[in-house]
Amino acid sequence: MIVHGYAAAESGGKFEPFEYEPQPLKPNEIGVQVICSGLCHSDLHMLDNDWGITGYPFVPGHEVIGIVREVGEAVTHLKAGQRVGIGWQSASCMHCESCRSGENHLCGESEGTCAGRYGGFADYVQVDSRFAIPIPDAIDSKHAGPLLCGGVTVFSPLFHYGVRSTMKVGVVGIGGLGHMAVQFARAFGCEVYAFSHTPAKEAEAMSFGATHFINSRDEKAVGGVAGSLDFILSTVFAQLEWGVYLNALRPNGRMCLVASPTENITIPPMSLLLGQRSLSGSIIGSPQMLYRMLDFAARHNVVPQIELMPMSQINEAFEKLRLNEARYRIVLSNE
Amino acid sequence: MIVHGYAAAESGGKFEPFEYEPQPLKPNEIGVQVICSGLCHSDLHMLDNDWGITGYPFVPGHEVIGIVREVGEAVTHLKAGQRVGIGWQSASCMHCESCRSGENHLCGESEGTCAGRYGGFADYVQVDSRFAIPIPDAIDSKHAGPLLCGGVTVFSPLFHYGVRSTMKVGVVGIGGLGHMAVQFARAFGCEVYAFSHTPAKEAEAMSFGATHFINSRDEKAVGGVAGSLDFILSTVFAQLEWGVYLNALRPNGRMCLVASPTENITIPPMSLLLGQRSLSGSIIGSPQMLYRMLDFAARHNVVPQIELMPMSQINEAFEKLRLNEARYRIVLSNE
Repeated sequence: MIVHGYAAAESGGKFEPFEYEPQPLKPNEIGVQVICSGLCHSDLHMLDNDWGITGYPFVPGHEVIGIVREVGEAVTHLKAGQRVGIGWQSASCMHCESCRSGENHLCGESEGTCAGRYGGFADYVQVDSRFAIPIPDAIDSKHAGPLLCGGVTVFSPLFHYGVRSTMKVGVVGIGGLGHMAVQFARAFGCEVYAFSHTPAKEAEAMSFGATHFINSRDEKAVGGVAGSLDFILSTVFAQLEWGVYLNALRPNGRMCLVASPTENITIPPMSLLLGQRSLSGSIIGSPQMLYRMLDFAARHNVVPQIELMPMSQINEAFEKLRLNEARYRIVLSNE
Repeated sequence: MIVHGYAAAESGGKFEPFEYEPQPLKPNEIGVQVICSGLCHSDLHMLDNDWGITGYPFVPGHEVIGIVREVGEAVTHLKAGQRVGIGWQSASCMHCESCRSGENHLCGESEGTCAGRYGGFADYVQVDSRFAIPIPDAIDSKHAGPLLCGGVTVFSPLFHYGVRSTMKVGVVGIGGLGHMAVQFARAFGCEVYAFSHTPAKEAEAMSFGATHFINSRDEKAVGGVAGSLDFILSTVFAQLEWGVYLNALRPNGRMCLVASPTENITIPPMSLLLGQRSLSGSIIGSPQMLYRMLDFAARHNVVPQIELMPMSQINEAFEKLRLNEARYRIVLSNE
């Protein structure tokens, strides 16, 4: 068989139709007929080789929804015809401490769905069956994709760091990640403060479930919430006034980065000491976290706001993302 | 009555004998006849007004051990003749969220034993009775003092951040704080890695309970523990290679600062994201944490290594501390 996808030949290059012959299916793998694939900001980082791990030709795509077409001989929990989703991670070593602890996403030999292999902007993809997650019937395929990477990226820290319904949660950046973070935090039962430097996003932020909107360029507004938030999730790649956000935390509060500048960040250490605060990081989520997140999203109607485009418009889609014009996730469909 | 103590008239000044008349005892206060007082690094910061909160004449001392001499009319849980200790904090508002939560040390109106009032390098001190902690019989007065501030400063984060016996713990800096941190972490049941830029401290660090000694100026040695520690307690005021220490943490590990440079610190954010790590702060401990710490220190024989000097040698003691020659805590005695 031949896989038909889209690949860029070089850093920042245009995508062209690309064909390849898949490897023979390994015992624990499944082959998936792709319905649609979400476009994530990290696809853009990968295209530009910002992290130095991109191979070319580069086939992006790691928010893949599809139908299982064939299963390897060792796969017993999935069967052909079943709808599954695949996120950033396509495999892990399965034997290190992180994998043994169910935290496969922290495995040092983690394999990315579109890193060192061909990703989901194609009609077919193969993946380790332990990283293909059944999609609840209540979730549309076009909405499921963005949950698989962007969704779990913001859900995982809320769960992992013990966010509870009694808390006040700040979400910095109302974009591809932030607009889902607001929904999840609200569904957790929290009071949600949306921070954005785009005042025009206020109405939408409130519609996603924010209870307060803070213009992050308004120093007085940001200063006004000093000492009041239990948890802040930062979803932006820009440098922030880190001390201002750390000081927005209550005693014992935590700020968690799920995106960050590539350069170092500078923080006032006394902001951590004086309130026993923490600055933490989080990255994607484990397979079990994906199951948990999808179940929660289905029950609480957490739905990413998407723009659906045919996969043939992949170049237009990447351009839109690069110009920060996606509202809020783009999904490319084979249908 | 007249209190006889030692005060500096100006920033960095010499101490001279100083007398003052105490305020009338408030209903919740007690008066304490001072046996001895530990000298803490923050006394030096206060003398030099490094934090801009020092009033002059400045009477330092906030690791006070003494005998209750009189109790205010509302005090029912302490009585004259009882031995108590007083740490950094001498009062809090008792009604804010932190106080209501038993975390009085995070109260925004916290009062320091030697900040805005006269401290414990004297023969007598008054304090809110809720901040005077009975000393277990098993602990000598001369050893109890340094536990009240330095001890709880390193014990509190071990307890608060959930350090457990299965963990590997790093202690950065083997000094006044670090030598107690090593003892506490070992008594918690942990494997303890002592980091010091003074190789001559290795034997002592091991005698305090360290299982490994790492010369922090040896990049190869520090790099050799990458990804291996669950918790790192940093007790130093110097700028560190923060990324190197963050990368010494295992996935989900935490580095906690109990001392820090006064300037900003620079960290690589990906060190937090990739391993879901945290950088946290901690400061002294609540009254309940002091009870817990003293009980634990008594049961596990955690004993600060001290140099006992008469209180009249207060200037020599401060000079020794300034030259970093104290091994490891100095205690000034009225006896």
